[in-house]
Amino acid sequence: MFNDFKLIDGRPVYIQLKEYLKRMITNGHLLENQKLPSTRELSTYLSVSRNTVLTAYADLEQEGLIYAVKGKGNFVSQVETFNAPSIQLNWKDKINGQTHLADELDLMKHGVRWNHDMISFNSIAPDEKLFDVENFKRAFLNRMAIEGNIVLNYGYARGYKPLIEYLLHYMEVKGVDIRNKDILITNGFTEGLDLLLSSIHKKNGRILCENPTHHTALKLFRLHGFEIEGIDMEDDGIDVSKLESSLSKKEYDFAYLIPSYHNPTGIVTSSEKRKEIMNLFSAYQLPIVEDGFNEELRYSGSHLAPLAAFAGAGNNVIYLSSFSKILFPGLRVGWILADKDLIYYLESMKRARTIHTSTLDQAVLFQYLNDGCFEKYLKKAKSVYKKKYELAVHSCLQAIPYKRITGDGGLHLFLQLENNIDSRSLLEKCSQKGVVFLPGDVFYTDDSGKDTLRLGFSRLKEREITQGIKIIGDTLRNDFGG
Amino acid sequence: MFNDFKLIDGRPVYIQLKEYLKRMITNGHLLENQKLPSTRELSTYLSVSRNTVLTAYADLEQEGLIYAVKGKGNFVSQVETFNAPSIQLNWKDKINGQTHLADELDLMKHGVRWNHDMISFNSIAPDEKLFDVENFKRAFLNRMAIEGNIVLNYGYARGYKPLIEYLLHYMEVKGVDIRNKDILITNGFTEGLDLLLSSIHKKNGRILCENPTHHTALKLFRLHGFEIEGIDMEDDGIDVSKLESSLSKKEYDFAYLIPSYHNPTGIVTSSEKRKEIMNLFSAYQLPIVEDGFNEELRYSGSHLAPLAAFAGAGNNVIYLSSFSKILFPGLRVGWILADKDLIYYLESMKRARTIHTSTLDQAVLFQYLNDGCFEKYLKKAKSVYKKKYELAVHSCLQAIPYKRITGDGGLHLFLQLENNIDSRSLLEKCSQKGVVFLPGDVFYTDDSGKDTLRLGFSRLKEREITQGIKIIGDTLRNDFGG
Repeated sequence: MFNDFKLIDGRPVYIQLKEYLKRMITNGHLLENQKLPSTRELSTYLSVSRNTVLTAYADLEQEGLIYAVKGKGNFVSQVETFNAPSIQLNWKDKINGQTHLADELDLMKHGVRWNHDMISFNSIAPDEKLFDVENFKRAFLNRMAIEGNIVLNYGYARGYKPLIEYLLHYMEVKGVDIRNKDILITNGFTEGLDLLLSSIHKKNGRILCENPTHHTALKLFRLHGFEIEGIDMEDDGIDVSKLESSLSKKEYDFAYLIPSYHNPTGIVTSSEKRKEIMNLFSAYQLPIVEDGFNEELRYSGSHLAPLAAFAGAGNNVIYLSSFSKILFPGLRVGWILADKDLIYYLESMKRARTIHTSTLDQAVLFQYLNDGCFEKYLKKAKSVYKKKYELAVHSCLQAIPYKRITGDGGLHLFLQLENNIDSRSLLEKCSQKGVVFLPGDVFYTDDSGKDTLRLGFSRLKEREITQGIKIIGDTLRNDFGG
Repeated sequence: MFNDFKLIDGRPVYIQLKEYLKRMITNGHLLENQKLPSTRELSTYLSVSRNTVLTAYADLEQEGLIYAVKGKGNFVSQVETFNAPSIQLNWKDKINGQTHLADELDLMKHGVRWNHDMISFNSIAPDEKLFDVENFKRAFLNRMAIEGNIVLNYGYARGYKPLIEYLLHYMEVKGVDIRNKDILITNGFTEGLDLLLSSIHKKNGRILCENPTHHTALKLFRLHGFEIEGIDMEDDGIDVSKLESSLSKKEYDFAYLIPSYHNPTGIVTSSEKRKEIMNLFSAYQLPIVEDGFNEELRYSGSHLAPLAAFAGAGNNVIYLSSFSKILFPGLRVGWILADKDLIYYLESMKRARTIHTSTLDQAVLFQYLNDGCFEKYLKKAKSVYKKKYELAVHSCLQAIPYKRITGDGGLHLFLQLENNIDSRSLLEKCSQKGVVFLPGDVFYTDDSGKDTLRLGFSRLKEREITQGIKIIGDTLRNDFGG
């Protein structure tokens, strides 16, 4: 007895001993009224200080797990370890259709397996080596010094007020008319979109989006039971004449658009197209859900305002974004900027579902932004990513026989292969050679895109980018006659 | 021009100037090709350093908002400020019934208004003055030193692995058989319950719970369209014979139970009742959703295992909890412990809806727990809350004419008034005298409970507890003949 007690580092020993004994009692290995070793005996036997045993025993007594008899020692209390007749439910049968669909569409579960020795073009998450950890720590300590107690207690469903004020100003600077608009802070972009889809009345149950489009959004549209009409992408954004034709034929609830560094194609919608789109949706009196994804990552070129700015005093654009894609994805902070009335209702759904977004995350992010650290970080990140981008483009043009390649910057490129080569077959071959990427079909609203793939380069070293792309190109030539 | 430029403290001046100019450009106050003042002129006019203006201009040029002409100065670029015909949608009409219900049931929006000069018994949040901010900071810095880059990047939908391991062990120590069980980390208890309700197949669309019960849970059951059968509470837990009678009459999908410091009654279900409940649900092969709410806050008395422990190797208990209620509510971290198969599916819903819970929150919480700080904090918190609890009980017994008073510890008491006095009328009178509390009806599954109220005392000073309760008692006697 007690010979399986093993200490781990970095945790107080008395707590480990207490938990060890508590577990022995609750699982019935120490029996009711059984005498425990004296503190002296146990401390010698386990090679821990006598004080450690004393503290552990005192805590166990306080919790009602043992009792002391004066002059006799410590004994195990009566602890109910009654087990009801053990029943086994079949949980798989108790799961609803929506959840089975979420499982089916879960790329993390069902994607191609890869390990860290491979060159993975899967991710478009920021490169963690770029993270500005020192300024982040400083922001944390500064904020804690200002209002540590408040940061750690309940906040408001709407969000942390200084962050909301900051973001309203941030959007105003982008040219957005913020009168009669408001902001709701969310657990990243994804919760924002899910809340919105959960809250709006499905009048037609039909939506428009670019084809291909962001996989997570597509998954949520499907989980919410929407019929999805995808519109082809031209090199300067969505095909507006096809968009117009769709709008004239059927009724839609809204459109979901990613005007900048569109995921997965990397296309930036031109200023002219932004105007045409806004005119069209004004004419049809339809809302647009604008995904502000990576808008900040413009490496060069002229300023481009979000659709929310083009809408002027109008209230039909719902702008969703987050800093996570560039800054710190581990902090789940996003926001919805929309008409005040809409935010009023979304706030109640947010409260019902998650009470509010982590005050800690919001407060530290606010401090970091307000201190001007984001501006500085962005300059550094842009120069690093720009180099990787140019290298990736150059390597693709050299090594890969393609039908179409798009990506105006950002953290990824999108390729359409020649001769209808199936990108999943290509992936199978490439993964044997240590290279993986995301097959493009997962981004399509229909069954197309089988000859496409997305290459995310943000987290790769320059050497890996050239090498990985070369392997893809060689595989195409050798195994597919590309 | 430029005379409305005002500096705020703590933000780099060049960023403020840049944003100010950007806003003037995007909103059309500075026109295309308009010449900007020279850096020397502007720095003199605004009383900022010339370097500040130089940096701001350089950034604006980089963003494509201004352009420089050698020897001539800086000019405003062409910036699209086109506004589409402004359209005004009526968002209220575009909101679905579920969201209107969420708004209706939103206590924060529609509760009695109060201000910080009043004595508020509304809250059962922890007292932020107790927060162990120093150790929390230390935990943050320690974790950041160990893996700052990882903490700030994307994590797993399932949760932060060290925290999951910690919690599995934590539950095992409570006597739970963790074989074939798993854990999903959630944004607090609330997201856990919402995920579960979103994922399970509504076979009968009917559930059982204690009456009264946790308002947030009740709200979620209603939002998910469940028919709710509330079972009366006896002083040692749910009325088991009524529970049995309900089970024998209709089919249910599951029961939701709060065995410890039940919200709102504060009752701790006895060990005997826990056994009876488990036997009953084994016989009916029904799942129990156990709310581990404030289980840690036991001030004295014998050890009580959660229902999840009583279930033994059975898999019909889904245990939901969070440390937020005692520790740091501003961190939104909760967990679901349940059968592996169930967690497998819930993971995909979690990923679809919020990707994952803040890695920062999880990692710092893990470090704080693992360092043994929670144990120490709990001892301090228990002794403070116990004093407040005893004072609140004593004051109620002295000052308030009641029909029933419950609360075995925890952070609140629940009162039923004599003579069917309506607690909302009482609240109206009391709030005029500077005291507010939560009318109990919001916790009831049916239209009952109009003569009940919940008194949360955790955040009040001792003086406020006695004084506030005295005012409620006096009001009852003077205005209601109580």
